[in-house]
Amino acid sequence: MNSVIELLQSHRSIRKFEDRPIDEALFRELLRAGQSAATSSHVQATSVIRVRDAGKREAIAELAGGQPYVASCAEFLVFCADMKRVFDACDRNGVEGVQQGMTEQFIIATVDTALFAQNVAVAAESADLGICYIGGVRNNPAQISEILELPEHVYPVFGFCIGYPEQDPEVKPRLPLEVIVKEDTYSDDGDAEAIAAFDQTMNAYYRSRNSNVKDATWSDQIGVLFTQKSRPHMRDFLKQRGFPMK
Amino acid sequence: MNSVIELLQSHRSIRKFEDRPIDEALFRELLRAGQSAATSSHVQATSVIRVRDAGKREAIAELAGGQPYVASCAEFLVFCADMKRVFDACDRNGVEGVQQGMTEQFIIATVDTALFAQNVAVAAESADLGICYIGGVRNNPAQISEILELPEHVYPVFGFCIGYPEQDPEVKPRLPLEVIVKEDTYSDDGDAEAIAAFDQTMNAYYRSRNSNVKDATWSDQIGVLFTQKSRPHMRDFLKQRGFPMK
Repeated sequence: MNSVIELLQSHRSIRKFEDRPIDEALFRELLRAGQSAATSSHVQATSVIRVRDAGKREAIAELAGGQPYVASCAEFLVFCADMKRVFDACDRNGVEGVQQGMTEQFIIATVDTALFAQNVAVAAESADLGICYIGGVRNNPAQISEILELPEHVYPVFGFCIGYPEQDPEVKPRLPLEVIVKEDTYSDDGDAEAIAAFDQTMNAYYRSRNSNVKDATWSDQIGVLFTQKSRPHMRDFLKQRGFPMK
Repeated sequence: MNSVIELLQSHRSIRKFEDRPIDEALFRELLRAGQSAATSSHVQATSVIRVRDAGKREAIAELAGGQPYVASCAEFLVFCADMKRVFDACDRNGVEGVQQGMTEQFIIATVDTALFAQNVAVAAESADLGICYIGGVRNNPAQISEILELPEHVYPVFGFCIGYPEQDPEVKPRLPLEVIVKEDTYSDDGDAEAIAAFDQTMNAYYRSRNSNVKDATWSDQIGVLFTQKSRPHMRDFLKQRGFPMK
């Protein structure tokens, strides 16, 4: 196993950061690494808002569910799926009959943005930085869009903290590979047993970790999560922002 | 700039592969690297179908728009957003009132899957392999789902070729970083001029590259792409497969 694969396998989210800035040249290279990820048909349907204003940081930290590291990390980014850029390019070129608001475009822009961000994550971790994805920006996406003045056809997919780690959390276990990877057809034979064993692994992990100790399993956590309505405002929010999922 | 960031910035899609298998232990490490990516609330809403059957490969190559490397690459994977696993875990645990079919769940599963795949891409490239994302599986997602026997609450996000490269294509230029990254608020001031310059960069690239030479710009290509209805079947397909975007 080479050192890059070792790096990838050692990922854990960082939620406590040193008060230490990231060198600007390095920061730009992280973003260039993000841009270098694959992009569907070269559309590059991503914009990144680098949030430097302290007041905006504080407001987003609160709107994202009270996550103080959004305010305290060295750099906080909001990764946006952006179809505006391509629609504007069509307008400038006098292209008529542009199709907007399609489900497929939503997928393209969301996937492009995720691939971009993951490259930034890997680049950052290769430079001894730590990161944390902030899905919590989708708790209050309308307010956050207003703060960042996001236009129509742009939505915030997730936030992203980067900085020098001031903690060293354990790597969180993952489901057995056999549950994830299936050969030629989708089969879940054996998954119930493998997940039962994984539940015990997670229980041991949750009971013994350094912080936020609890007596729970993966299945317990999933049960709590999915009996809540997951961010039920997302459908209307997206529709209002130019993603009606046609 | 360190070697990992250099690796990330040197990505290009590979569409011609040596007839050479990938060592099984290495292949498993690539997938473990994928699993190590961040996952929203630890849901791990991804399944990977490893397609080894030659007949299935041929059929998918055709259904994905006639992409022969789907059949000829060493490993072909279909990355699926999978909400079935968590719903089944809830069922087994006797959890009642599980919320299904929400837009937010679609986002979670799609983003989880993209982050996973991008880690596999980076891991593969670190081991001298090449990769190509195959968005074309969304050309005929219903037929491909049938071939792979994908159940409800699972959809194929993209395919993914891996193998040892038998070509050495150029790295494709990306939009200027200034167009992508914005500070504190979304502003597109100066973007029109920067994109006009990028159009000239792309024109020079398309005219001089080794294969598929053409006289086009980025804006030209985008115009052609978005006057077509992008995979208009996706909305109904997803609805039928348990993703009604509630």
